[in-house]
Amino acid sequence: MAKSQAPQTNMDVDYVVVYRFLKTDKTKAVAQFEKLVGALSEVGLQTEVRNGDSHSVLLFVRVASDEHLYGEVYRSRVRDWIHGVRAAAPPKETREALEAEPLYEAERLRIIYQLITNPASEGGAGITPKEGEWEGVESIFALHDRAYNADWIKKWRSSFFLKTEDLDEIRNRFGEKIAFYFAFTQSYFSFLVFPAAFGTAAWLFFGHFSALYGIVSCLWCIIFTEYWKHQEADLGVRWGVRGVSRIEQKRRNFEHEHITTDPITGEQVGIFSVQKRLRRQLLQIPFAVAAASLLGTLIATCFGIEVFISEVYNGPLKWILVFIPTGILTTTMPILSGILTKLATQLTDFENYETHAAYENALTQKIFVLNFITSYLPIFLTAFVYVPFGNIIVPYLDVFSLTVRPFAEHEKQLQSPGADWNINPDRLRKQVIYFTVTAQIVNLGMELIIPYLKREGTSKYKKFQSERAAKNGGTSPAPSVNDPPEDAAFLERVREEVELEVYDVTTDIREMVLQFGYLSLFSVVWPLTSVSFLFNDWVELRADAIKICENMRRPTPWRADTIGPWLDSLSFLTWLGSLTTAALVYLFSNDGLGPDGTPANIRAWALLLTMFLSEHIFFVVRFGIRIAVSKLSSPGVQKERRDRFLVRKQYFEENLKGLERLPKLKEVSEQITRESLEEDARRGSLSESTAEERFWARQRGWRETVSVGKDLIQRTEIENRPERKKEL
Amino acid sequence: MAKSQAPQTNMDVDYVVVYRFLKTDKTKAVAQFEKLVGALSEVGLQTEVRNGDSHSVLLFVRVASDEHLYGEVYRSRVRDWIHGVRAAAPPKETREALEAEPLYEAERLRIIYQLITNPASEGGAGITPKEGEWEGVESIFALHDRAYNADWIKKWRSSFFLKTEDLDEIRNRFGEKIAFYFAFTQSYFSFLVFPAAFGTAAWLFFGHFSALYGIVSCLWCIIFTEYWKHQEADLGVRWGVRGVSRIEQKRRNFEHEHITTDPITGEQVGIFSVQKRLRRQLLQIPFAVAAASLLGTLIATCFGIEVFISEVYNGPLKWILVFIPTGILTTTMPILSGILTKLATQLTDFENYETHAAYENALTQKIFVLNFITSYLPIFLTAFVYVPFGNIIVPYLDVFSLTVRPFAEHEKQLQSPGADWNINPDRLRKQVIYFTVTAQIVNLGMELIIPYLKREGTSKYKKFQSERAAKNGGTSPAPSVNDPPEDAAFLERVREEVELEVYDVTTDIREMVLQFGYLSLFSVVWPLTSVSFLFNDWVELRADAIKICENMRRPTPWRADTIGPWLDSLSFLTWLGSLTTAALVYLFSNDGLGPDGTPANIRAWALLLTMFLSEHIFFVVRFGIRIAVSKLSSPGVQKERRDRFLVRKQYFEENLKGLERLPKLKEVSEQITRESLEEDARRGSLSESTAEERFWARQRGWRETVSVGKDLIQRTEIENRPERKKEL
Repeated sequence: MAKSQAPQTNMDVDYVVVYRFLKTDKTKAVAQFEKLVGALSEVGLQTEVRNGDSHSVLLFVRVASDEHLYGEVYRSRVRDWIHGVRAAAPPKETREALEAEPLYEAERLRIIYQLITNPASEGGAGITPKEGEWEGVESIFALHDRAYNADWIKKWRSSFFLKTEDLDEIRNRFGEKIAFYFAFTQSYFSFLVFPAAFGTAAWLFFGHFSALYGIVSCLWCIIFTEYWKHQEADLGVRWGVRGVSRIEQKRRNFEHEHITTDPITGEQVGIFSVQKRLRRQLLQIPFAVAAASLLGTLIATCFGIEVFISEVYNGPLKWILVFIPTGILTTTMPILSGILTKLATQLTDFENYETHAAYENALTQKIFVLNFITSYLPIFLTAFVYVPFGNIIVPYLDVFSLTVRPFAEHEKQLQSPGADWNINPDRLRKQVIYFTVTAQIVNLGMELIIPYLKREGTSKYKKFQSERAAKNGGTSPAPSVNDPPEDAAFLERVREEVELEVYDVTTDIREMVLQFGYLSLFSVVWPLTSVSFLFNDWVELRADAIKICENMRRPTPWRADTIGPWLDSLSFLTWLGSLTTAALVYLFSNDGLGPDGTPANIRAWALLLTMFLSEHIFFVVRFGIRIAVSKLSSPGVQKERRDRFLVRKQYFEENLKGLERLPKLKEVSEQITRESLEEDARRGSLSESTAEERFWARQRGWRETVSVGKDLIQRTEIENRPERKKEL
Repeated sequence: MAKSQAPQTNMDVDYVVVYRFLKTDKTKAVAQFEKLVGALSEVGLQTEVRNGDSHSVLLFVRVASDEHLYGEVYRSRVRDWIHGVRAAAPPKETREALEAEPLYEAERLRIIYQLITNPASEGGAGITPKEGEWEGVESIFALHDRAYNADWIKKWRSSFFLKTEDLDEIRNRFGEKIAFYFAFTQSYFSFLVFPAAFGTAAWLFFGHFSALYGIVSCLWCIIFTEYWKHQEADLGVRWGVRGVSRIEQKRRNFEHEHITTDPITGEQVGIFSVQKRLRRQLLQIPFAVAAASLLGTLIATCFGIEVFISEVYNGPLKWILVFIPTGILTTTMPILSGILTKLATQLTDFENYETHAAYENALTQKIFVLNFITSYLPIFLTAFVYVPFGNIIVPYLDVFSLTVRPFAEHEKQLQSPGADWNINPDRLRKQVIYFTVTAQIVNLGMELIIPYLKREGTSKYKKFQSERAAKNGGTSPAPSVNDPPEDAAFLERVREEVELEVYDVTTDIREMVLQFGYLSLFSVVWPLTSVSFLFNDWVELRADAIKICENMRRPTPWRADTIGPWLDSLSFLTWLGSLTTAALVYLFSNDGLGPDGTPANIRAWALLLTMFLSEHIFFVVRFGIRIAVSKLSSPGVQKERRDRFLVRKQYFEENLKGLERLPKLKEVSEQITRESLEEDARRGSLSESTAEERFWARQRGWRETVSVGKDLIQRTEIENRPERKKEL
């Protein structure tokens, strides 16, 4: 895509607004378009319109002059300061403010995006893509910086680790939210080096299910999770976004039950009753149960069929029939997952959250549950159902004989082997290898190849269509026919970018978190897991960079100070790992005192005790590691301290000078003694003087206190001397 | 003590400084006294000196004028603002600031105390009682407000629940730290009503060890702990102290290894290596082990002796011999506890923390461990050692026959009963009743009576001494001989207050937390526990108020936004309760499937499974309750929002007006089209004009964009019509 002859300039365009008018009639379309351009110009945005693909026009937008940005920049900075994101209030003169702290590209783009989309009450143009009156506005996106992207990818290809400066650059270009994803993956990648090395050693020397590897792996998971939290805070300060998640963004789709006047701000606010939302949230329970049983049944059935075919069935075509369950899974699972994800989204919509953060959080939780089932349930089934209860269950797998009955030559091939049947101890390891190697590679490939094929296909189809149209008599000329030749290349590129998909960073974060899950939950089964991940993630980081640059529209650079609710998933997986690792080590290790996966030797109390101890040691160790990590000094914390100190210093300097001009009490007292003796005498004689006044009038000035005190001390000393001797 | 004829005025005295010079020689004492008075006057404090008890003088201090307070008030408020305790920066003109936000009494006293004790670099007089050059300064304390105290106690005696306004008053008088203790105890007391009622019902209808009571009790503990956290935050906002715990106070006793220049502030800061502290902290492990084994051995021995005497021994004097172990415990335990507490303090000193908060935290942890052992170990021994392993252990208790051998008539009385011996199922309940009723009452009595007896004793002894001295020839006259008759009564009262002890609020908080522990850990043994606590705490709240007013010096009103590290202890006890309650219910309930305390019926896996499930249900429920509690609206949060909103509004109003004066783009564009046509023409003809300039010059003003767009829309519509039909 990044053709060398493509023009590198973006024509100073800040945003492209795609206005599509397929569904509206002509007059309405024109009126709406006029309103759109008017609204944009109202907030200080300059516009140019060009022809777009079928039934759309491209509206190019840029800020007319810096003055028009000021209001929005200032508003954003004051909001930051109020929420504690900035240490000091922004300077009041806005030009000064902008000169002292110039905008970086992502900030500029974010602020312009907010200028376009924020409601008029907050100073924006109030254009909400695809919603309400702005249904015609298909999308608003910035253009890729081709030159930078090419450099970026080139640079990454030749480097092994990313430096903080590289992350800074991503932040400057794509905003903090995406930068946090790269920072997380990079941090995870660097951390993987240790378990990869240790895992290789464990694989070579300790055998499978080594308790030592389990302990080290759990420790590593804790350290990584806690260290990432620390690093997140540090990067947040470095990028000046610490605390932005506290700035609540109202959801536009929030539907209020009734409107009330906020007693504090006097604004009209929509209210949705908490009880009602709670009742709606309770729907999550049947949803989770239904999703778990649906997915669970599917997985368990396929698992059962697979066990039956591979371990019971003894007839012809076994080598190919074994793939039946995999086939069922790979075809039905994505469909089912898609339906459930859609349902989860609808459920979250129905829960009607007020803020973006709450919505994201609720959705992520549901998605995590779905992903948890699809990703880990198969391994859980093998480890904790197939192995301990295999002897009990396998005889009942006869029900699956239906699936292969047509191929069997005689009944005996379908009969369970009975008592002499044994559990296949290699199944668990094979499964883990499948999920941590094969599935990862397939996934990575899909991420890169599918969009490429899609793009190529679309462009070929279009070419074919326009060629056919040209043959038919040119009824549908290319949208570029009216382009000024000078802009043609640029406009062609823009039209290509319009076709691209919207990048959603949470998908990528989820992928990493789920990968981490395999490591924390099951890597004791196959210690080379992290070696596979290490290679995978090196490619993944680069592939994601390419994906953002070439397969996706340039993302709107949102801010963030964390990877979001996925952080909780990370902690959850680390904790669960302490249970599964202990259970796996107990169940399968034969070097220790474990039952070596032989169900007969499993002792329930020993298994429970192992897990119980492991979990509580985990809690204690995590507590210790948290304290240790909190002690780590970090450049971010240093920066925060410096900012605070400077603000405080400035305030003190400005204001305490006035105080220092106050006369010291010494002088005051002396003045009193000299000047107001008569006054005091007069007062003392008045019967109105209070007990308090008389009390404080006995000693004038501190010198008098000293002399009276001196007298008291010396007198006491003498009088008490005999007494003192007695005491000795 | 609050004699009706005592004068109610405090003579406007802010603080009393007790200067004792017993150990110094006369000249030095006088010089030191002069320095002290000078230093106080330097920071704007007026002084009066009077004679004190043996070898001491009383230095009365008050702020000379409000101007002298300003610096300190301003400094304190700026510091608060920097740390996010205040929403807005304090107004720069200090008199204005003080008028807008007048000081409450506790704040005034705190600021004056800081004025006296803060180092000179922070604007204080740098007087550090009992330390370094100020060794002679025995103490600095404020005088009780007799009138208020009398009213306060009278009011409380007649009310059942305390209102928030009552807590506000405590806060205004005694500061937030003490107010938080009362708020906590009050909140705990109100919460106790429910378990007291439910416990009575459970006791009447469900019998002992009811699983239902256990579940409800655990739930109640979680709700209380989480609700208290919420309330703490709320009160913190209400009292304007939310976040004060973040303001780090340097410890004066901190010893640095070397001095370095802070790169940020340019100050000289002492550094103590973290590694070295970590090594010192590791001493906690042997300390904890030693303390646990010492206290554990003592408790276990006494427990063993008691079991032996009450259940094995069968000779004469049994009724009195049974009290031997209690006797041993009550005499040795306080001594041992005292030694260990002292050791813990020394260990914490040795760990050399930089800030007060870190020091307090470390000390509290150690004290909690000690208290945990002394308070709960006996019951743990009964429940989890005596019952399950009683049959194995009791035969070995023969070793304790030594203690009663002199009283036995024949050997048989000392022999263990062997196989036919049975566990005494009532022992556990009796023990819980002892700890939750008897021990609480004794404790409360001690708190009230001991100081009273002590005070009476001291005053009688003094009277006796001075009478004897008078008989011997008046070598030691009373310190009041030189008092002006008018001040005599006031000075006598001050001298009485000097004799009083210093109040430490953490002792009282600890007591409450430990009491809560019995409830969360063991109340399933005897559901009436909370009834006993309900009565106890009603008295306790009043007794503590009386204690502060009459038995203690007026405490320096420190700020706090939490009950401190004890909050963690509370969470810990709640969590541990989920384990112990489950274990107790399993072990002793016979209505369920439990083994009814009969060791032979205990199944290790069932016990572990019960605890494992209980703990994890606890985690889930706590998570849910945390979310539910966080949704609770609170006046504090409302107040915080209001403050924030007002600050933001003010800023916007001040500064966005300037922005609104900017010309709207509409006008700008029109101006351009009219005025600069020639200019543009000239520019366009120049070959230097860039592609960007030409791109943006095609459509001038937003109206032109609209008309071009209109054209595009209409053309596309027509051209595409045939194409569209095909698609349909």
